[in-house]
Amino acid sequence: MANTDSVGLRVFSLNCWGIHYLSKHCPQRYAMIGDLLCKEQHDIVLLQEVWSEKDFLSLKQKLASTHPHSHYFKSGVIGSGLAIYTKHRIHDTFLYRYSLNGYPYMAHHGDWFGGKAVGLAILNIGSLTANIYVTHLHAEYCRDKDSYLPHRVVQAWELQQFIRHTSAGADLVILGGDLNMHPQDLGNRLLRTSTGLRDSYSETAKFDGCENGMTLIADNPFISQKELGPFEKGIRIDYILFKDSSKAEIYCDFMSTTKGSVPDHPFPYSDHEALTAELSQSKTFADPLLLFLVDIVTEARTEVKVGLHCAERMRYTATRTGVMGLALLFLELAIAAVPWLALGAEQPFPRTSFYMLAALCFAILVTTFLLYIFYTMELKSLQGAEDQMRLAVGSLQERLRGFPLAQPHSSQRRPPEGLEPSAFDPEE
Amino acid sequence: MANTDSVGLRVFSLNCWGIHYLSKHCPQRYAMIGDLLCKEQHDIVLLQEVWSEKDFLSLKQKLASTHPHSHYFKSGVIGSGLAIYTKHRIHDTFLYRYSLNGYPYMAHHGDWFGGKAVGLAILNIGSLTANIYVTHLHAEYCRDKDSYLPHRVVQAWELQQFIRHTSAGADLVILGGDLNMHPQDLGNRLLRTSTGLRDSYSETAKFDGCENGMTLIADNPFISQKELGPFEKGIRIDYILFKDSSKAEIYCDFMSTTKGSVPDHPFPYSDHEALTAELSQSKTFADPLLLFLVDIVTEARTEVKVGLHCAERMRYTATRTGVMGLALLFLELAIAAVPWLALGAEQPFPRTSFYMLAALCFAILVTTFLLYIFYTMELKSLQGAEDQMRLAVGSLQERLRGFPLAQPHSSQRRPPEGLEPSAFDPEE
Repeated sequence: MANTDSVGLRVFSLNCWGIHYLSKHCPQRYAMIGDLLCKEQHDIVLLQEVWSEKDFLSLKQKLASTHPHSHYFKSGVIGSGLAIYTKHRIHDTFLYRYSLNGYPYMAHHGDWFGGKAVGLAILNIGSLTANIYVTHLHAEYCRDKDSYLPHRVVQAWELQQFIRHTSAGADLVILGGDLNMHPQDLGNRLLRTSTGLRDSYSETAKFDGCENGMTLIADNPFISQKELGPFEKGIRIDYILFKDSSKAEIYCDFMSTTKGSVPDHPFPYSDHEALTAELSQSKTFADPLLLFLVDIVTEARTEVKVGLHCAERMRYTATRTGVMGLALLFLELAIAAVPWLALGAEQPFPRTSFYMLAALCFAILVTTFLLYIFYTMELKSLQGAEDQMRLAVGSLQERLRGFPLAQPHSSQRRPPEGLEPSAFDPEE
Repeated sequence: MANTDSVGLRVFSLNCWGIHYLSKHCPQRYAMIGDLLCKEQHDIVLLQEVWSEKDFLSLKQKLASTHPHSHYFKSGVIGSGLAIYTKHRIHDTFLYRYSLNGYPYMAHHGDWFGGKAVGLAILNIGSLTANIYVTHLHAEYCRDKDSYLPHRVVQAWELQQFIRHTSAGADLVILGGDLNMHPQDLGNRLLRTSTGLRDSYSETAKFDGCENGMTLIADNPFISQKELGPFEKGIRIDYILFKDSSKAEIYCDFMSTTKGSVPDHPFPYSDHEALTAELSQSKTFADPLLLFLVDIVTEARTEVKVGLHCAERMRYTATRTGVMGLALLFLELAIAAVPWLALGAEQPFPRTSFYMLAALCFAILVTTFLLYIFYTMELKSLQGAEDQMRLAVGSLQERLRGFPLAQPHSSQRRPPEGLEPSAFDPEE
């Protein structure tokens, strides 16, 4: 772990390919990833495609002692899939959801439903303020005729805007993730040039991993040659980028990737290779900051919780109505089927009523389905805000403990005698 | 206008209530607003509810000599309604769209379709970097039973996050807009406390305007007593907030609001009152910055334009298909109506086919309608990115002119001899 005089940081990034029932060996691979992270104890772990919050939570439990701080970024219908685990306290988070992300009717590509975004977590590492970004851009399904290219370019544009505009106060910037772009692709150049972020693969003093730093390789049994197209050996689309400041000069000492197979295991961690970068620096200065916000943020959190309950109720009502619509439809079909099965018996169901009722059932089903989707998105947003507020309150309380006189009511909120501060950790 | 030694800034903010056909006297009021702005020549003009881009463009034309720089923030189905006109060069813009904004089926409230957001424009005023924010939060339709409160609190939360995270590099921060919150409302306290923004109404040395700085008043003929509820005289929901830095100490010398009527005109500028704040400061230092991005941003802009054309074509196809579905429905109804009109004549249309065809027509209409909405949102996002890129290229080119040797290819892009630099202004 970092001390106040020097920072040695090990950063890990992996696209986990965590689509339950669709991705192969999903639970086993999560177990392997958990074991790896426990053993390696990186300072910062950036994961993508953690589509299920349950997986995030079980990893969180497993990493409780090695990586006590974590955050899961909620967005869209399914979620953003982005997660961060770290040894260092997370003081603040922020999520920017890309304005374009594919098409809802291209359901087999699924990107639209994922709510692709860039997550920011602000960490204090030693006395440095570090802005840690994790992102996952729209996939490239066909390089020759890539109809999503404008969307990906807009995402890269918004990503660089977000990083530039939010990192002015940072002493250290790290971006990890699956950019779905080759090193010299337009969006990648746009991102690196406009933010000044440096590629740890290009900058590293020592490298151990796949040829050309590739992260989607033919040797990975989950990858078909078809996916790689003309790039027979593989492509490099996952990155750890970093940027230093006048306050902290940063170097990449060592970088590594996994190589498609894991010793003593029958399959790799994911269809993507995992990246690890070891960054180091020396000079640091202190720059403390104090805000007086606990009461207001707590109140806001209560308000958001009210909204959460309300949205949950609405979603439940929509589900119930939908189920009723479905039941009505089955009932109608059953009634209509009776004379049909009793060959030749007279049809008791007037045809007009039959069609009208069926149309009504369909209308109910479509409406409730759309409402369900909508309330799910609303819930994600509310939960996302609530999470961030919880984190902010925790961070503020921690700071107030150090400055008890600065906040008149802080004594009420300080831990009772004998109780360890960790019991007040808002991350629990 | 500002010089390098001191800054005297006049900031204007108005919710224009620019809903064509629904808002009263819309064209006449825009003409009045244009005249006012031409005459008053504020440094920065922040407008909300400019729902039609045409109105933005006609105002832009009218203000070409007084406010040569402007930006319209695109978002959502209709747009964000946010616009900025300024005397000072806009160097960069960024838009954050709130993750929650009401419900699409509450169409009569309309907020969801507006794509409420916060726009950021970065200006260089003298040698200061000023972050100018303009926003419009979700309306409050019923204060006692406000089902949108969690949405508005999340918006206020995201607004303060956005301002905090993006303003670290700014010497001066100004936020203008319709917050739809009373001064002591939770969201408002959250915003002010967490960002450190100060209310120009509370801070001003001299004030001329409505009692208690109200901006939605009973004396305004467009406002009904019902809208104000228990607040008989009016409420204060529009604000100009500001924040200084160690580099620039800022004061509010004077603030004013309109008072519900305009001399020599039969009605006011809007249903909201307009705000003007005069801010001043003294010390400044220089801090130049240079980026080498023109080629890449230009390339990205081309890519986005390709996407734009594609989305336009898709939207056109959806519209055409929808029109065909509608025509088919009318045709069917006409055929079915013939025997019905010719009283008693035999019905030539088999009932089953009739219903199936009608269902098909409806399905086409619903699908094409949803697609139309979707492509409109896509177009807005693409156009928004394209606008920002154009602005960025212009700003970069301007900087490169001052540092011709820093960019190897810059000579190709420099204005030919005898051509005024203004001919290359990207704002045109």
